[in-house]
Amino acid sequence: MPGSVPYGTIQLVVTSFDPRTGEAVEDVGPETSAGDVAHLCAMAVEATAELEALGRGGRAAMLRAMADALESDRELLVEIANRETALGAPRLNGELTRTTFQLRFFAEVIEDGGYLEATIDHAGDTAMGPRPDLRKLLRPIGPVGVFGASNFPFAFSVPGGDTASALAAGCAVVIKGHEAHPRTSQMCAAALRQGAAAARVTEDVVSLVLGRDAGTAVVLDPNIRAVGFTGSVGGGRALHDLASIRPDPIPFYGELGALNPLVICRNAADTRSAEIATGLANSFTLGVGQFCTKPGLAFVPAGSQGDGLVAALVEAVTAKSAGVMLNARVQHGFAAGTSDLGQLPGITELAAAQPQDWTQEGWWGTPLLLEASPAAVEGVVLEECFGPVLVLVRYGSDNELFDLLRWVGPALTASIHADADDLPLAHHLLDTLSGRVGRVVWNGYPTGVAVAWAMHHGGPYPATTDALHTSVGASSIRRWLRPVAYQDVPAELLPPELIDAPAAGHQVPRRVDGHLHI
Amino acid sequence: MPGSVPYGTIQLVVTSFDPRTGEAVEDVGPETSAGDVAHLCAMAVEATAELEALGRGGRAAMLRAMADALESDRELLVEIANRETALGAPRLNGELTRTTFQLRFFAEVIEDGGYLEATIDHAGDTAMGPRPDLRKLLRPIGPVGVFGASNFPFAFSVPGGDTASALAAGCAVVIKGHEAHPRTSQMCAAALRQGAAAARVTEDVVSLVLGRDAGTAVVLDPNIRAVGFTGSVGGGRALHDLASIRPDPIPFYGELGALNPLVICRNAADTRSAEIATGLANSFTLGVGQFCTKPGLAFVPAGSQGDGLVAALVEAVTAKSAGVMLNARVQHGFAAGTSDLGQLPGITELAAAQPQDWTQEGWWGTPLLLEASPAAVEGVVLEECFGPVLVLVRYGSDNELFDLLRWVGPALTASIHADADDLPLAHHLLDTLSGRVGRVVWNGYPTGVAVAWAMHHGGPYPATTDALHTSVGASSIRRWLRPVAYQDVPAELLPPELIDAPAAGHQVPRRVDGHLHI
Repeated sequence: MPGSVPYGTIQLVVTSFDPRTGEAVEDVGPETSAGDVAHLCAMAVEATAELEALGRGGRAAMLRAMADALESDRELLVEIANRETALGAPRLNGELTRTTFQLRFFAEVIEDGGYLEATIDHAGDTAMGPRPDLRKLLRPIGPVGVFGASNFPFAFSVPGGDTASALAAGCAVVIKGHEAHPRTSQMCAAALRQGAAAARVTEDVVSLVLGRDAGTAVVLDPNIRAVGFTGSVGGGRALHDLASIRPDPIPFYGELGALNPLVICRNAADTRSAEIATGLANSFTLGVGQFCTKPGLAFVPAGSQGDGLVAALVEAVTAKSAGVMLNARVQHGFAAGTSDLGQLPGITELAAAQPQDWTQEGWWGTPLLLEASPAAVEGVVLEECFGPVLVLVRYGSDNELFDLLRWVGPALTASIHADADDLPLAHHLLDTLSGRVGRVVWNGYPTGVAVAWAMHHGGPYPATTDALHTSVGASSIRRWLRPVAYQDVPAELLPPELIDAPAAGHQVPRRVDGHLHI
Repeated sequence: MPGSVPYGTIQLVVTSFDPRTGEAVEDVGPETSAGDVAHLCAMAVEATAELEALGRGGRAAMLRAMADALESDRELLVEIANRETALGAPRLNGELTRTTFQLRFFAEVIEDGGYLEATIDHAGDTAMGPRPDLRKLLRPIGPVGVFGASNFPFAFSVPGGDTASALAAGCAVVIKGHEAHPRTSQMCAAALRQGAAAARVTEDVVSLVLGRDAGTAVVLDPNIRAVGFTGSVGGGRALHDLASIRPDPIPFYGELGALNPLVICRNAADTRSAEIATGLANSFTLGVGQFCTKPGLAFVPAGSQGDGLVAALVEAVTAKSAGVMLNARVQHGFAAGTSDLGQLPGITELAAAQPQDWTQEGWWGTPLLLEASPAAVEGVVLEECFGPVLVLVRYGSDNELFDLLRWVGPALTASIHADADDLPLAHHLLDTLSGRVGRVVWNGYPTGVAVAWAMHHGGPYPATTDALHTSVGASSIRRWLRPVAYQDVPAELLPPELIDAPAAGHQVPRRVDGHLHI
């Protein structure tokens, strides 16, 4: 990091911990100073201009070089990330594969060029009189701040979806690495910078800052034009409010948290009790329940149609084991959250997984299955409890189910399990739930968010701070782009995609005089 | 209005003024109470559900019926609007034509269906393992609050672009009518409701509230999911901040103000001095300068290449006459703003138009041409002065021009006048200015914002509060939509546009497995 610490100030050091022992392992460096943040954000302005000038082809090559650079460090990256997060090598290898896939996916997205929304209206007479020649496309919004998440050290952190989509759009990123995995963050940033250099692009397209104050400074920096964030409601909301009350407000895309309700219709519960119990138990305990898409609240039919499923779920949860959580804050939050839940009237514990051996050190969380009486649902839905806990609610009539669902606020996802005989109820459920979530999952589980053209990973607040946008999938690039219209501008000065007959390499889907052309 | 005034409270009355006399003409009714605002917003939830269920065809028919209803009231609407705004019958007839054109244009936009961004990824194996079936489209975000502007009683007010695009999207609107034209607002709301009824849709798709407190209550109402606003930086920013710090923040699209710089290159100034002087004088005095796209700052070459243009501009402005402004607040703001400008060091008055006869009543504004020395530019660019004033700055070298332009902040538009011999400089200007405005105008004037597919009417703050979006043109519908993804949902429960082989009437442009299909 450039710059130096002013005389007389204390510079805090960022420490990497091992969640399996709860011990500090190493100091990875100082928190980034305010002066250094300002310097990095200023460099990001220049880097953004270079990225835009590079064109779509050049940026696609850079994204692929970044993926290659991450791949070539795979072994060490997974080792260090595993040491810092305890998520395990298999999961982290898969997550790194997703991350490099995502970088390459965005190379394809920008090569396709549809994301530019190129639009041409030739001059002509209209019902409103003569109209000038108008041409429009989307251009990079400027340097982007990115906040990595604790629970995905690769796919939603330094080399994750926000970074990949922002770079694809043509925006340099200044990334605040998460304190839960600072060494992994440093290594990922270095790999991305290496990838940029390999593609002959300035390494300043990616900068890393460490420390909470540095993160705040990124959000407030006048050169930062938008921010992507994945994390808690508390942290995300505070930064959202800062971004909104800046002298010049900037868009803040916070992907926060959600209770992700799941409803099991009567026939599905009856005929597929074992299958659904296994799937649901696996989903809410996946990654020690540390997913923003974790199903937190499941509605199960009362009476004999649901009893078998509940019994199977109790069995499945009891057979699970405790796991090491990401960090002390997450573990304490889970312990406090489940303790608070347990003290609500109308809540009973149905099952708990095998706890860890108490002689073991580290930040453990034990999967827990609770049941809330219908009257207790109001208390349960107030806040997501991050970690491996699922609350069941038994419903009687359809009316009672919809009365209960009225307590359930917006979420990233809602899941419906239904058999053919459940269709009338399921149809009504789909109408109700799709009105307040970003993704409806049918006969499945919400964990697992495919990187795809049709993915939407978002939802009304508090699922995200901006329901219009997604943080996963092709459309997530839209967050970092703003339209610019060109009125009567001569062809030789237009962006190459807006010329009437574009050269090879600049042919993109366009709407011309109201008609789409592929 | 439903409801009643609680005992002991004072209900304020909304008064319609005549700007030509400055006199109150009539009381149009009480300010809307908090209880009534809440009631109207709750009804808008039901109306939104009805609008979505109506489908694109039904909403297109409704928009056309609304246009017809406005047309059938044309004579009286123009008469009343003219009395309330003093904008003159020819301009108001043209504005009403634009307004009905815009309603019909959005009928075409939703019939086209591309705005849905319908996307399908069939289930399949990927580099990331098996992927579920994913389908996505954009759905109405919910009830929308709309704030009408003072300067366009039709096209940016009750029946304007925000209303048309929100209704097209499927969102009911609760509109805060502007106090500068409350009777026009009432009549327009009545016409829109009549149009809805004629199309057999609930009239509650459009509600009107009056009074500043009622406007604030709309922004804070939990049922309102987004807000569109056209008006001043002060008012818009205050409401933006309220929307952002709600318990559940909602998007606020404020189209505020801008200085809209215009640069005249040397050869253009030399060879087209008379033409540019006439065009520029007409543009900055159009509608008594009361346009958000009014050019407020023009850069003219120093020396002989610019002298002719300045002389012609002085002549053109001197030949103009004072005009009646919209209301007392606007007139006082213009008087104070020009007085402040005149007292800045380095500012000189070049020309003023013919003032009104001082025996005349009313809120007059006199077109004014000022010159700022290069050193004075910093003071000039601090804030837009709404009204018929243009500040000229003479530039010497290219370097001096770009040094001056660094003071110019973001804006809705920037205009460049250039001849063939100016191209090297003009190219550099285009690069610089297109990086900070929403629309670049070549050899033209920024007033006049065509309703078209390729229009962008927006820009970085303070031009708007959200640089991603436009308030004019087809894309403005995107502000009122949020994506919803359907994972493995059976065909019979999908929105009709997302079925593999959609029925006639539901065929829209789609991206299927990564490929666009028209």
